[in-house]
Amino acid sequence: MLIVDKYGGTSVADAERIEKVAANAAATSKAGHDLVVVVSAMAGETDRLLQMSRALNAAAPPREVDALLATGEVRTSALLVMALQARKVAARSYNGAQVPVITDKVHGRARIARIETAALRRDIAAGTVPVVAGFQGVDEAGNVTTLGRGGSDTTAVALAAALGAGECRIYTDVDGVYTADPRIVPEARCIPRITMEEMLELASSGARVLQTRSVELVGKYRVPLRVLSSFAPGAGTLITCEEKKMEQPLITGLAYSNNEAKLTIRGVPDRPGVARQILSPIADAHINVDMIIQNVGVDGTTDLTFTVERSDYKIGLEKLREAAVTLAARDVLGDPAIAKISVVGVGMRSHAGIAARMFSALAGEDINIQMISTSEIKISVAIDDRHLEAAMRALHREFQLDHNQPPSS
Amino acid sequence: MLIVDKYGGTSVADAERIEKVAANAAATSKAGHDLVVVVSAMAGETDRLLQMSRALNAAAPPREVDALLATGEVRTSALLVMALQARKVAARSYNGAQVPVITDKVHGRARIARIETAALRRDIAAGTVPVVAGFQGVDEAGNVTTLGRGGSDTTAVALAAALGAGECRIYTDVDGVYTADPRIVPEARCIPRITMEEMLELASSGARVLQTRSVELVGKYRVPLRVLSSFAPGAGTLITCEEKKMEQPLITGLAYSNNEAKLTIRGVPDRPGVARQILSPIADAHINVDMIIQNVGVDGTTDLTFTVERSDYKIGLEKLREAAVTLAARDVLGDPAIAKISVVGVGMRSHAGIAARMFSALAGEDINIQMISTSEIKISVAIDDRHLEAAMRALHREFQLDHNQPPSS
Repeated sequence: MLIVDKYGGTSVADAERIEKVAANAAATSKAGHDLVVVVSAMAGETDRLLQMSRALNAAAPPREVDALLATGEVRTSALLVMALQARKVAARSYNGAQVPVITDKVHGRARIARIETAALRRDIAAGTVPVVAGFQGVDEAGNVTTLGRGGSDTTAVALAAALGAGECRIYTDVDGVYTADPRIVPEARCIPRITMEEMLELASSGARVLQTRSVELVGKYRVPLRVLSSFAPGAGTLITCEEKKMEQPLITGLAYSNNEAKLTIRGVPDRPGVARQILSPIADAHINVDMIIQNVGVDGTTDLTFTVERSDYKIGLEKLREAAVTLAARDVLGDPAIAKISVVGVGMRSHAGIAARMFSALAGEDINIQMISTSEIKISVAIDDRHLEAAMRALHREFQLDHNQPPSS
Repeated sequence: MLIVDKYGGTSVADAERIEKVAANAAATSKAGHDLVVVVSAMAGETDRLLQMSRALNAAAPPREVDALLATGEVRTSALLVMALQARKVAARSYNGAQVPVITDKVHGRARIARIETAALRRDIAAGTVPVVAGFQGVDEAGNVTTLGRGGSDTTAVALAAALGAGECRIYTDVDGVYTADPRIVPEARCIPRITMEEMLELASSGARVLQTRSVELVGKYRVPLRVLSSFAPGAGTLITCEEKKMEQPLITGLAYSNNEAKLTIRGVPDRPGVARQILSPIADAHINVDMIIQNVGVDGTTDLTFTVERSDYKIGLEKLREAAVTLAARDVLGDPAIAKISVVGVGMRSHAGIAARMFSALAGEDINIQMISTSEIKISVAIDDRHLEAAMRALHREFQLDHNQPPSS
């Protein structure tokens, strides 16, 4: 089988860890698999480079930031090839231009347009392991581009798709996708198999395992993706684009974010277009709005509440106060200490009552639900962030996430 | 005038120094010159990368070492462009592949085959300063190559030649080429103008200012080269391929090496081929031999003396002892504490008596001359290394190097 393995920054943080990666890759290669390896920059390297860049130019030109950052992954790729060759594994490093990974011109968050695989295929056929610098490409004019934070995952999945690989494995510092953050819920379990949709909902709800775009690529290219640890044994979590079988659990996992803030404007005239008038200045200030609820008020007025990232709270409050003056609203309220919890699972499509069980579990802990939003396979609630841990544990118990084994492959 | 400026590692060692380089380049650009800048890796960076490489593979594959090392200069080029743009100077970074600088396939010490200048010329015409990562190129297959230590000088001179620049300026941490090492001879003076031949003799005799290959390129491409400091004001030293005028001084400067050792084999049969028999095993052990003298002995035997680098002394002595057995020589002597001093000047071509003045100046200090070698514009002597400083000062006085102003341009 052709496998594309990707190692993140903590997995290649120093010479000793690069040795371990080389040993792992050598074992895969010697087990008879064809192998392509994608690497990130050594942990901390990208941040260090960004700091240098900011020291010289607070508004550094994106083309140059990309040229600078892309060197981090190039270094790792060359170092890993050295370590592989020391183990008598034939290998060759590739930077983005050498593959080449052709992208659009959007520096800092380029999209891959196409990957030319001839050189890689020649190496694979000759028994040489290509080690590709992740996170980067070149545009048609030869300018170095980067794919955005976590872009090495994207490189790996896109390469796996382009090469028709049997599996793309993302090695990281966690040993898979968990039913909940184990730092908060000690009973949390590694999920052996999850659908892409569930993974997307978990990722967009605060579970930080894979870049959302990489998960989308699983669906786009139909490449099975496995997340596993470079430090601990175990098969990790396989992310597939297949539907689950009937015996699937209702809920696959919990995600959370304790980095939310809530803004409310009260007593706005209840007429068409008023939500746009309130939210446009927020959007213009580059503030992302997450959950939104609007209550119908009495005497022809209405209240609008929404959540933003906590770092945007102050500026959001300011913008909302300006809007309140324009709209002659009654008042503006805010709460910067909000957490969001989501339960995710394709099973809830066909099962009513998930919301009721969720709310009753939270009520059982005396936790007040401030906002609710739902999608086909997710229910999110906003609560006071002091209750985050208690809420997570209660929900984990309620949906028996520590017991139910989803069907493994 | 089109100028190619090259900044070495100490000149771009940190953000503060990169700012200074940007200020300097901005001034050149604003003075109306067209400008191309070539940069080295930040001081210490290349050594740090080599160390990482050796930690992973004592015999690291040269292709990968080149891929690794070349990232150092790429980083500097991007950072300098950021600093230039912060000063409202339009600039764009180029790595070796982007120029492109096409080289042969000899990793670690590649030779430039050709430079395509179309992209650089477009930038120059548009008033944009190209900032080129030195030291690197790509071979015809797109593999990253490096030009060897100090190769950024070579990049700069070759670019100046390819672009038909009026001058190539090498910014470094010394303010020019001196009549002698100022740490040894406090009266040493910066030489305003020197011929390429003199510069080559000085460089090969121990003055460490420019990579020899860059100086050769001055002759090959007829590009005037100026060496100057990035930290101190001053016009530095202009290296030209022109002959000097009549009023030239006899001697341009002194060079030295206090890193020599002397080996002597005595009482070898004086027959043809014996020198080869002695020196071949030395060459086979990759030991460079510098000065060689052979004395005709009495009773049909001869003595051969030569100098080697001090680090090769022990192994050289061993090889020579083996040869002595084979040749039935009388004995082998050695002295690991030898210094070499050279006086260099195109003026000595037409003036007799330089050697006599040199020897008498040394005799005046009671310094015994152990070996002598000469070229058309250089005389070198080997002496006991304890006398190095006294000898340098005596010669500097004798040839009035602190007084004579060579004609400046």
